[in-house]
Amino acid sequence: MHTTTPLAADCPLCLELGGLLILQTPRWRVVRVIDEAFPAFYRLIWQAHVAEFSDLDALQRAECMEAVTAIERALRGALQPTKINLATLGNVVPHLHWHVIARFDWDSHFPNPIWGEAKREVTGGAEARLALPMSDLDQRVRAALGA
Amino acid sequence: MHTTTPLAADCPLCLELGGLLILQTPRWRVVRVIDEAFPAFYRLIWQAHVAEFSDLDALQRAECMEAVTAIERALRGALQPTKINLATLGNVVPHLHWHVIARFDWDSHFPNPIWGEAKREVTGGAEARLALPMSDLDQRVRAALGA
Repeated sequence: MHTTTPLAADCPLCLELGGLLILQTPRWRVVRVIDEAFPAFYRLIWQAHVAEFSDLDALQRAECMEAVTAIERALRGALQPTKINLATLGNVVPHLHWHVIARFDWDSHFPNPIWGEAKREVTGGAEARLALPMSDLDQRVRAALGA
Repeated sequence: MHTTTPLAADCPLCLELGGLLILQTPRWRVVRVIDEAFPAFYRLIWQAHVAEFSDLDALQRAECMEAVTAIERALRGALQPTKINLATLGNVVPHLHWHVIARFDWDSHFPNPIWGEAKREVTGGAEARLALPMSDLDQRVRAALGA
């Protein structure tokens, strides 16, 4: 992490990576969230402790969303998901992070948001239904981010 | 609506405005969603029928997110919300639209996402707790978008 990045002492995203590290730069990092129901769930975390997207300046916002778009494109290309979901909420952890989630018409909650009610059980688990192993998917995401 | 905008015959966001119209341009429109629990809930809808954010080109993505940012800033300035939530899901209506929602620590679902479980009842209604009338808020959003 860049030494001039402002951090907050009590913020979990300042203290921990927040998932399996895929790639990081001085300004942001991308992790994969470990979630059985949604295996293709990545998160872009801004390194500096800012709460809102509009706390970034225009260049930072563009860089942030181009990285989010690269993750989205990697997931679309690798998995042909029914839909991509993007969100930055931060109600619990107000440190800017973007969720990038591949959704499938067979997943436990579809078409509900992942935060809504489950609609079905996925026998055999969600990860087994993906078109490629997680390590390959991680590598595709990493490559899309220019690593 | 611009006459060359590609529309889909069975898409509700191609057929209807999708909320109270605040402003529109040839490329996008902003509406306010009528939701009793979340009165400060705006939506940017891309006019063309595209499903995913990454279906836009780089200039379109920048224009889209600068408009989303303008809405966010108007809500922050007018309401001092606890948090802004941004999301593009589209699982039910796969026509690109961004939710921009001002959240408050007293709202019915906070800190849950609006799609999650309710946490409390808001006596007197949420709109009555906002710092200004909805028509004034709409005008602030319109002004922030450059109208």
